[in-house]
Parts: sequence; C-alpha cells; structure tokens
Amino acid sequence: MDAPDDTATERADAASNRARLLDAAARLIAERGAEHVTMQSVAEAAGVGKGTLFRRFGDRAGLLLALLGEAEAEFQEAYTEGPPPLGPGAPAGERLEAFGCALIERVAAGADLGAALGRQVLHERRQASDTGRAFHRHVSTLLKEAGVDGDQDMLAHALLAYANFETTDYLHVGCGVPVPRLQSTWVHLVRLVTQIGGP
Amino acid sequence: MDAPDDTATERADAASNRARLLDAAARLIAERGAEHVTMQSVAEAAGVGKGTLFRRFGDRAGLLLALLGEAEAEFQEAYTEGPPPLGPGAPAGERLEAFGCALIERVAAGADLGAALGRQVLHERRQASDTGRAFHRHVSTLLKEAGVDGDQDMLAHALLAYANFETTDYLHVGCGVPVPRLQSTWVHLVRLVTQIGGP
Repeated sequence: MDAPDDTATERADAASNRARLLDAAARLIAERGAEHVTMQSVAEAAGVGKGTLFRRFGDRAGLLLALLGEAEAEFQEAYTEGPPPLGPGAPAGERLEAFGCALIERVAAGADLGAALGRQVLHERRQASDTGRAFHRHVSTLLKEAGVDGDQDMLAHALLAYANFETTDYLHVGCGVPVPRLQSTWVHLVRLVTQIGGP
Repeated sequence: MDAPDDTATERADAASNRARLLDAAARLIAERGAEHVTMQSVAEAAGVGKGTLFRRFGDRAGLLLALLGEAEAEFQEAYTEGPPPLGPGAPAGERLEAFGCALIERVAAGADLGAALGRQVLHERRQASDTGRAFHRHVSTLLKEAGVDGDQDMLAHALLAYANFETTDYLHVGCGVPVPRLQSTWVHLVRLVTQIGGP
C-alpha cells in the first residue's frame, strides 16, 4: 500500500475506509438482521481488526447510527434534489404522494435496522428528531405549495404520524399489512387533504 | 367497623377500599405529577398502611396500571354507551369528531400518568394494545357507518396515529400545541375522510 503523502489523500483514504466498513455492516445486517450483527463479525467481513471498528464508531450503537445517518442523508438528497416526482419538478401533490410512498418503503425495508436502533439507542432521540423535523418541513411546505386550506403544519404532523416508523413498523411487521396497502392509504390521504377548497 | 359476615359484604368492602386507594392516588397524581407520587404518600393519603397498598397492587407500576385501567373503562363506557355525540345516537361522522376530540383531551389531561407509565411500565404493551384495538374497532366501524369509500381499516389506523398518545404528547407537551388546535385538525381530517364519494 502506497504511503499517503498529503492530507487530502489521507482524508480520501479515511472516507473510503469508513464507506467500506459501513458497506460491510449493511451487508451483514441485510443477511442476518441487525440483532445478530456483532462488531467482531463486521470487522471480519471488512477485513480489519475489531479495534479499528471501535476507534472509528465508538461502539455498536455508534456504528448503527452511522448507518442510519447515511441512509437518511441519501434519502434527504433524493427528496430535495433528486429526480421527480420525489424531487423537484413534479406538482406538489404528486411529490407528496411519492414522498410518503418512499418513506413507507424505506421504513419497511429498514425496519430491522430501525427496530434495532430503537431498542438499543433509546436515548439518541436528537437524531430521530432532526430527521423528523426535516420530514415535517418538507411535507408542510408541499401542502402549502399544493394550496391546501387550513392548518398545514398540523396536517403535516397528522400525515407523518401515519407514515412514521412506529406506525409503519407496527402495521407492517406487527400486523402483516403489506407495503403496497400502506402506500395506497397514504396516497388516498394525500388526495383527500390536497383537494383544493375542501370542506 | 362491623365484621362482615358474608362474602358479598366482604367483596363490596374490598371494592370500596380499592376505589378509595385509587381515588387517593389519582388525587395525589393530579396535585404533584405521577413522578412524585410514592407508595408511601398514597398510603398516607388513603389512611392505610403501605403493606395494604402493596398487597393490593403488587407494586407502584401495578397501582399506576390499575388507575389507567379505570380511566380506560370509564372512557370506553362513554363512547360505547354514553350520551351522544360521543355515544350512540348521533350520525357516525359526528361521533368520530367527538371521539377524537375526547381522546385528545384525555391524552393531554392524562399525559402525566401516561408518560409515567410509558417510562416505567415499558413491557406492559398488552394493555395498551388491547385499548388500541378497541379504539381501532370503534373508528373503523364508524367510518363504515359513515359510508366512507376505500380501506376503512387503514384509514382508521391513520386517524388514530394522529390522536395516539405518542403523537399528542409530542405535539402538546413537547411542542406546546394547545389542545383546541390538535382537536380542530382531528375534526378537519374526519371531515376530509368522511365526505362520501371522495376523490
């Protein structure tokens, strides 16, 4: 391995190492479920020592949070800058439909990681709350853009209460409701709420 | 005190003692907040020994759950058998409006007890879940009665996700949203959902 001779190269190496560790962790979680993924198994899969993993992420919860943070950053980019209808360019109502469907899909797909985090990183409320605030800003902005009458801020909370992790996880994992059924109720709700000049 | 000489009298005494203990606990909780209510203080307020309280309710969580159970039984009676518009006799849409408003009022009023229970009786999911199922049955039945098109079961989940303890507590206690504002969004949602032959 070439010795890096400047800070930029060092930084790029660190970033690519970090990405490699997170990739390994994500792969193992998909295969085994987050509950069964240990720091040891991630270190082995990534071909590094366990010490490297602990130095980088602090502990297992830190690794899981880093993974969740990556997923959230990607999703945020998709709904703020990505292609329509999730990103800008489509009418507000269609963007709202796409946003909720993507959110439900994502929660259902990541239920395992999310649930593991919920059980294990109970006090990391701040992060969930930052994400929650970004979601709320997005939905209430689109409701206003769609010309919805009434208390758009509260309506955004109401819509998001349906699409949030607790509700979706309870309905999908707990009650076996398939993702498409959850999504079509979201679409139904958005259409009810966005019909201009409603009751 | 007369010695009870038959089982019925003993039972009636036990029930009235239980009610007296629960009344004392409810009064103290209203005065001080659930967090600051100890078994000792409830025993003193009710004029019994602490041992009596522990024999009756097992532990502090048992006492709190008994209180919550009482409150829930009362509320269930009100929405299934009480006067309209909460109880039978009013059109389904109006009963739905009244139900959510009562639920939000109740969650906000009992936030302290509910939050204490949430923090302290984390594994008592079953009880919350029984109540949750009863609420869902009520809302989905009224949606059907109101002639709502679509997936009434999921729409009931969506409406209740907004009026449940987590959402209401977050918005009311966490964000300072006043109860009337929470209630008028419920009414708005119900009117959107129940307009027959929607979008």
